[in-house]
Amino acid sequence: MDYSKMCPKYECATELLGKKWTGMIVRVLLGGPKRFKEVKEQIPEMSDKMLTDRMKELEQFQIIKRSVYPEMPVRIEYELTEKGRGLEPVIQSIQDWGEGWC
Amino acid sequence: MDYSKMCPKYECATELLGKKWTGMIVRVLLGGPKRFKEVKEQIPEMSDKMLTDRMKELEQFQIIKRSVYPEMPVRIEYELTEKGRGLEPVIQSIQDWGEGWC
Repeated sequence: MDYSKMCPKYECATELLGKKWTGMIVRVLLGGPKRFKEVKEQIPEMSDKMLTDRMKELEQFQIIKRSVYPEMPVRIEYELTEKGRGLEPVIQSIQDWGEGWC
Repeated sequence: MDYSKMCPKYECATELLGKKWTGMIVRVLLGGPKRFKEVKEQIPEMSDKMLTDRMKELEQFQIIKRSVYPEMPVRIEYELTEKGRGLEPVIQSIQDWGEGWC
């Protein structure tokens, strides 16, 4: 890799990942579709508002997909898109580094 | 990997990486020791204050090492520690994802 100049595609990718909670939300969703409450359970220190904002943002970036099931009561689930699942090697490498150094 | 519960080591790692600019600064320093100005050149849209803050933080986390060379004028260089160089697979996987999806 050429480290002598910044790459716009890298910049774009870190802009997304370089936000508090994003890496944690993606990790939870790698476990399969989840309801808001289920994501929250794994990241209890994050506020509802913050999770709502991050989910909206991840939806805009097409990292996650929101599905509404017209049941009673309505069920809403979030799942990773193909683009989102493509982040698995990133999440894995962060995990590896954390295990070695945190 | 077990995605059914959050891992504290992953959490610790994302806390560091989930900050604006950190991923970009680490990428620049993978190119070898750099002076403040040289880091800045690759990330011109980041303010001096922000770079100073991030550098201090990365030093606290022992990701980078700051060396002062008593020349005239004094030369100060920043370089990755072993812990910091350990982030190369993370940076590489972010780059790969960015090339595919950004």
